[in-house]
Amino acid sequence: MSNTLRVGLLGAGRIGQVHASTIVYRVPGAQLVAVADVNEAAAQACAAKYHIDASYNDPLAVVNDPNVEAVLICTSTDTHVQLIEAAARAGKHIFCEKPIALNLAEVDRALNAVEQAGVALQIGFNRRFDANFRRVRHAVETGEIGQPHILHIVSRDPAPPPIAYVRVSGGLFLDMAVHDFDMARFLIGSEVDEVMVQAGVRVDPAIGEAGDVDTAVTLLRFANGVIGTIDNSRKAVYGYDQRVEVFGSGGAVQTLNNYPNNTVLSTGQAIQRDLPHSFFMQRYVESYAAEIVAFVEAVVKGTAVPVSGHDGRQAFVIGLAAKLSWAERRPVRVSEVG
Amino acid sequence: MSNTLRVGLLGAGRIGQVHASTIVYRVPGAQLVAVADVNEAAAQACAAKYHIDASYNDPLAVVNDPNVEAVLICTSTDTHVQLIEAAARAGKHIFCEKPIALNLAEVDRALNAVEQAGVALQIGFNRRFDANFRRVRHAVETGEIGQPHILHIVSRDPAPPPIAYVRVSGGLFLDMAVHDFDMARFLIGSEVDEVMVQAGVRVDPAIGEAGDVDTAVTLLRFANGVIGTIDNSRKAVYGYDQRVEVFGSGGAVQTLNNYPNNTVLSTGQAIQRDLPHSFFMQRYVESYAAEIVAFVEAVVKGTAVPVSGHDGRQAFVIGLAAKLSWAERRPVRVSEVG
Amino acid sequence: MSNTLRVGLLGAGRIGQVHASTIVYRVPGAQLVAVADVNEAAAQACAAKYHIDASYNDPLAVVNDPNVEAVLICTSTDTHVQLIEAAARAGKHIFCEKPIALNLAEVDRALNAVEQAGVALQIGFNRRFDANFRRVRHAVETGEIGQPHILHIVSRDPAPPPIAYVRVSGGLFLDMAVHDFDMARFLIGSEVDEVMVQAGVRVDPAIGEAGDVDTAVTLLRFANGVIGTIDNSRKAVYGYDQRVEVFGSGGAVQTLNNYPNNTVLSTGQAIQRDLPHSFFMQRYVESYAAEIVAFVEAVVKGTAVPVSGHDGRQAFVIGLAAKLSWAERRPVRVSEVG
Amino acid sequence: MSNTLRVGLLGAGRIGQVHASTIVYRVPGAQLVAVADVNEAAAQACAAKYHIDASYNDPLAVVNDPNVEAVLICTSTDTHVQLIEAAARAGKHIFCEKPIALNLAEVDRALNAVEQAGVALQIGFNRRFDANFRRVRHAVETGEIGQPHILHIVSRDPAPPPIAYVRVSGGLFLDMAVHDFDMARFLIGSEVDEVMVQAGVRVDPAIGEAGDVDTAVTLLRFANGVIGTIDNSRKAVYGYDQRVEVFGSGGAVQTLNNYPNNTVLSTGQAIQRDLPHSFFMQRYVESYAAEIVAFVEAVVKGTAVPVSGHDGRQAFVIGLAAKLSWAERRPVRVSEVG
Repeated sequence: MSNTLRVGLLGAGRIGQVHASTIVYRVPGAQLVAVADVNEAAAQACAAKYHIDASYNDPLAVVNDPNVEAVLICTSTDTHVQLIEAAARAGKHIFCEKPIALNLAEVDRALNAVEQAGVALQIGFNRRFDANFRRVRHAVETGEIGQPHILHIVSRDPAPPPIAYVRVSGGLFLDMAVHDFDMARFLIGSEVDEVMVQAGVRVDPAIGEAGDVDTAVTLLRFANGVIGTIDNSRKAVYGYDQRVEVFGSGGAVQTLNNYPNNTVLSTGQAIQRDLPHSFFMQRYVESYAAEIVAFVEAVVKGTAVPVSGHDGRQAFVIGLAAKLSWAERRPVRVSEVG
Repeated sequence: MSNTLRVGLLGAGRIGQVHASTIVYRVPGAQLVAVADVNEAAAQACAAKYHIDASYNDPLAVVNDPNVEAVLICTSTDTHVQLIEAAARAGKHIFCEKPIALNLAEVDRALNAVEQAGVALQIGFNRRFDANFRRVRHAVETGEIGQPHILHIVSRDPAPPPIAYVRVSGGLFLDMAVHDFDMARFLIGSEVDEVMVQAGVRVDPAIGEAGDVDTAVTLLRFANGVIGTIDNSRKAVYGYDQRVEVFGSGGAVQTLNNYPNNTVLSTGQAIQRDLPHSFFMQRYVESYAAEIVAFVEAVVKGTAVPVSGHDGRQAFVIGLAAKLSWAERRPVRVSEVG
Repeated sequence: MSNTLRVGLLGAGRIGQVHASTIVYRVPGAQLVAVADVNEAAAQACAAKYHIDASYNDPLAVVNDPNVEAVLICTSTDTHVQLIEAAARAGKHIFCEKPIALNLAEVDRALNAVEQAGVALQIGFNRRFDANFRRVRHAVETGEIGQPHILHIVSRDPAPPPIAYVRVSGGLFLDMAVHDFDMARFLIGSEVDEVMVQAGVRVDPAIGEAGDVDTAVTLLRFANGVIGTIDNSRKAVYGYDQRVEVFGSGGAVQTLNNYPNNTVLSTGQAIQRDLPHSFFMQRYVESYAAEIVAFVEAVVKGTAVPVSGHDGRQAFVIGLAAKLSWAERRPVRVSEVG
Repeated sequence: MSNTLRVGLLGAGRIGQVHASTIVYRVPGAQLVAVADVNEAAAQACAAKYHIDASYNDPLAVVNDPNVEAVLICTSTDTHVQLIEAAARAGKHIFCEKPIALNLAEVDRALNAVEQAGVALQIGFNRRFDANFRRVRHAVETGEIGQPHILHIVSRDPAPPPIAYVRVSGGLFLDMAVHDFDMARFLIGSEVDEVMVQAGVRVDPAIGEAGDVDTAVTLLRFANGVIGTIDNSRKAVYGYDQRVEVFGSGGAVQTLNNYPNNTVLSTGQAIQRDLPHSFFMQRYVESYAAEIVAFVEAVVKGTAVPVSGHDGRQAFVIGLAAKLSWAERRPVRVSEVG
């Protein structure tokens, strides 16, 4: 491997462009050499904007471009497994957006292909790279709060996605909460053994008609005895609400939300501040960059990627267990489903 | 009823003296006229300190003192039902510390006696009178946060009680969490339908040997669809941690802890403040006074007391359901047990 | 001196009753044995409410009551000096509300009488006993912030007093800021050498017509080299704003305001909390009790009172210097005026 | 003018590279076409890193490069005036780091040259573009706090610069506080009329030996009657402390510091968070980009630049007045010096 990693981008949509910008402007050790999008004009525009030499309308063309050493898979979910398999066969290292797939057999097929090929696979759980959550993980890891006993995650979106998206997304547990299941494993450093769910449709009846819920609390039991809760809502009117707390034998650590400014206004009515960030692209902008930096560094150095295919699989399996717990109104062992 | 309520105190221990002090110094409309304690010296000392005319070593002597119009039952839990029955028979209004009893049949016997006699019975769920929690209830009640969707209660003690107490207390769910079950009903204004519990012994193995847990998270489903969690630990090294959050369609409301001072120290190591109050007598000092003021006012005006015997029973029944959920590792409908 | 200090109250107005309540309910080592008010009915009502044996319409009657060992002077400012002299002559210990007088010669006359008589004199700078400011003083005293370099005091009232009061009060510097001049000396533990003032009439022109200002910032230089500022306004629409900050070689310490509750409301408009306390009786309720407790303790034990007559004089002299600085638009050495 | 502004960079040091990065990665409407540094290797390295076509060791070569439409002056202060004059003569628009010069006659010479040439000149007061301070300005401008009455600025560095720099920097008032004098004018929207200073050497005697102070508080009176204070220290051990507060007839607005993370740790000792940003490049990273974006936009659109040469001059003049006030221990009218 050269010192500069030659990267190909699959999918020139919103998140694809975020990663393109990171490679071009923030990672001296990588170079974006090819881009593909089924919308050819989008691929060409992206190539022009980021000075990328080659653009294609077929992602496989990038995968098979001999100049490409690693690929960023930012296409729609239904193409992930096929592209992971193709990239693995071609010996390319892989960064893939979450989720790997919405079917466990397909997830396993993809992981198997990666393992056979011996390439690196990193899953896009960007929140692990957020400064707040890294600080919490640091506190747990170094014993600043002693042995962890209880975990709380609050993860509320500012507004629900379009119903059309809800129908194909896998639902709240596999689409939205999957980030939180990964966060739970990341923060506690132990596997989730059992889940119990209470959920409902409180935000929009159309979400219920689409077969999904919009409000859920998941109770977790970890292998190491920690108890956790995850609070999900599709609609927090005050913005994107993303907080965690870990309580342990030696103390507790919790995160506050991030705000566009740190200004407090006192009037005759209230002491107030402006709303927190209302969108994940603002809230997590730095973590999107950091995950790509970490991927390139791991591949170039030949070290383990920080978020493995196994991590992607485990968060997905917890999501399956949560769906089942809600469907059958009972505790579900994670081992039951995966 | 005269304009000044003549009150008798049963039990001159710590909480009894707190209530005595409130009656004497803060309630112009009430007068403390008798006190009893099985420790006669304690009763006499209390009488001397608060200028109380009559002191006895037998609580029933106060109950039957014709000068007494209302009693404050602050004796040990095992005497509550008998004293409630006696006071009811004697036509005396009753303020009783929680819990009414540790056995549902006895609770019902006491409530039945009260109902027959037509006297007032208020249960000592003092936290309902805390300024923070009242503000949260106000936000829910007035629609400041729209329709409530999710509730979180964190209720952690600074240190576990003596093992001897743990053995007779009814355990974490009936002794400690019962305050939180009441708080859940108070804040949401709806009954709890179902509970699921995860719990364990993390603080002290001796608590487990005594047949109890010291760490628990209870997942609640309310009749009105709200989902709730209660986080209990017997030991938070940083002090008494008492917070709630209610999230709804129009916003969220949450409480912070109370501190001995509002001073922030910035050093070369951290930006820090001193620990929050470490004990319930400091944290809830004002709420103990406010509940007695409210009791006297309700009795004098003949209006409903703010925390009824039914409230005491419901919190207890949720506690029984939680114990069962943990014992059998399954969701338990509250209607199953009470 | 007996173990129980027999105290007489001069003036049964608002602050007099606050102190009466403290003596009666919070100070086991003191007893309120006499009260006087030029309004005889007020004296009698106070005596009835607090079970005081003797009531008079003449403060000197209390001063000269042989049963009285110490007096609390809570009468109007123009009577302070005369009552201090009389009490000193009668050998009574004295607690006197601030200010001692509005004329330096009179202040000195009073202090002289006290010194001659060898009685204790404590001045009512209650804010020294506030938990926040005590914590700041502790940080300075113990070196938690190293050597102090800069002090800031913000002291804003929620609303201006009546114009009639403004006219006789001595004005913003001698009436309102005098508390802050004392706080400055207390926190830094050094004398103020020089003051420079910028001030104006921004709140109400009537205050200007009465010869006073309603908005002022005073720049202080202390003997030990610390630089300080005091920010005074007669009207903060969001409530009583009372904060300090000390910055030093090893860090900084600052206080936040005190609030009726610690509840945060998040809506679609803002993240907000209710206004801080809006009145000094709520904000400083505990400090009013603590100063009386400290006075009684010092007198009973024969130790130095925590706020001396000298402290009262120095705060007054700084106020005179500030007035002069503003009148002549120049730096004024405190030694120039006192 | 073309739609894309062709920019030349003078000085490839730290701040020059920050601006280069902004132009290249964040401003679609601008292109970096030339760079000069007296250190030729530095110029070449910068050109290579940012894909700049031309690099020189003589800043005047960039100024006179016909391909260049605007210049960013990031060279040492003593070259600013000469380069501004040259650029103005060449008809190039100018962004110049503060200060323009350390001598008022030279400042005026530069401003005169700009005015004669009719080119744009923006001064690098980047803090005006910080999200916190913009929010405060917005509150003042829109009347959210009514009429402003009092301003406080706290501006403390984490550590003093090298003594060699102190000697040539113009000293605390012209080098460090000049940012705050500009902030004062920006936030209040009125000119400063008079200053009074208290200052001293508390951090390092070597700073005093170099003829400077390291700790200062400046009291300001604005033309519109607002009173202000500026608190400067060369050393805050807990990090870069940058806060402001404006108090007015309708409320107050204040900023808190910015932190690397929003995580709170509770231990048995304290409730704490990590230190705020410790360096201006982290704290103000976004504002450095925003000022360049605003400069390019103003030049391309032909609108007024947001921070004019007059703004640069006024902050400098207030600094001169502050120096004089401290030297002569008296209030100084700004009109006296400029």
